[in-house]
Amino acid sequence: MALEIRHAAPSDYGRVIQHVNAWWGGRDMAPMLPKLFFLHFESTSFVAEDDEGKLVAFLIGFISQTDPEEAYIHFVGVAPAQRGSGVGRELYERFCSVVGAEGVQRVRCVTSPVNEGSVAFHTSLGFTVERIAEDYDGPGEDRVLFVKQLG
Amino acid sequence: MALEIRHAAPSDYGRVIQHVNAWWGGRDMAPMLPKLFFLHFESTSFVAEDDEGKLVAFLIGFISQTDPEEAYIHFVGVAPAQRGSGVGRELYERFCSVVGAEGVQRVRCVTSPVNEGSVAFHTSLGFTVERIAEDYDGPGEDRVLFVKQLG
Repeated sequence: MALEIRHAAPSDYGRVIQHVNAWWGGRDMAPMLPKLFFLHFESTSFVAEDDEGKLVAFLIGFISQTDPEEAYIHFVGVAPAQRGSGVGRELYERFCSVVGAEGVQRVRCVTSPVNEGSVAFHTSLGFTVERIAEDYDGPGEDRVLFVKQLG
Repeated sequence: MALEIRHAAPSDYGRVIQHVNAWWGGRDMAPMLPKLFFLHFESTSFVAEDDEGKLVAFLIGFISQTDPEEAYIHFVGVAPAQRGSGVGRELYERFCSVVGAEGVQRVRCVTSPVNEGSVAFHTSLGFTVERIAEDYDGPGEDRVLFVKQLG
């Protein structure tokens, strides 16, 4: 199937948010993805659609305003039927290419330790685990911290 | 009481996140405030402390990467005992001053319609209501959209 990857737009938000909890196996993920990310980080965020225009994956990221040599990937989702197709990898590569052209030297992201598929996926993309941080996103919210050097 | 306002740092996150739900009257706000905001938007985020170093208020905001003439305030919290003291207003003024110096022309933020105190507060600061948007941050998550022109 032919997929098209393009920049995310605010008008994509409604389609994404209705899938998010289901794509994460019923976990309540939607509060972590307010619309602001679709409004203010378009140039570093992407959606993938199939040839019928159906949403199959998305990536939300930005360049750090504290350290412009660092970028952060906040959220990536792939429709269950598309997992293993390579579209997640394509989204990461597109992101790294865009931020690399802006002078970014390294990309960081975090995931939940319970999400073993996500940990394996990031490792396969060349991310390394910096550490597992307890209570990283608040009490009980442990996170695996990943980093990848670009170039 | 003398208050000190300074830029937020990643090390402030733990103190902020433990207060957030209580400061919002028990609503589960913490998932909307992951640590990333304290890591990547330091120059446009602030905390206020009293003369004993106790956290009394914070503001998290950033400059839009889609439109550098626009800034967005994501989260503002004031300890219940400090409401009405003017510290919230001071945080907004500090933010508008910093982003205005970077060429920002307008500041946007959103709040929940149930948060009547927040609606009144933003109006008193010179924000105007653009509209009330149904399902803005996902199904059932209506938001009041505010804007303020700078300068």
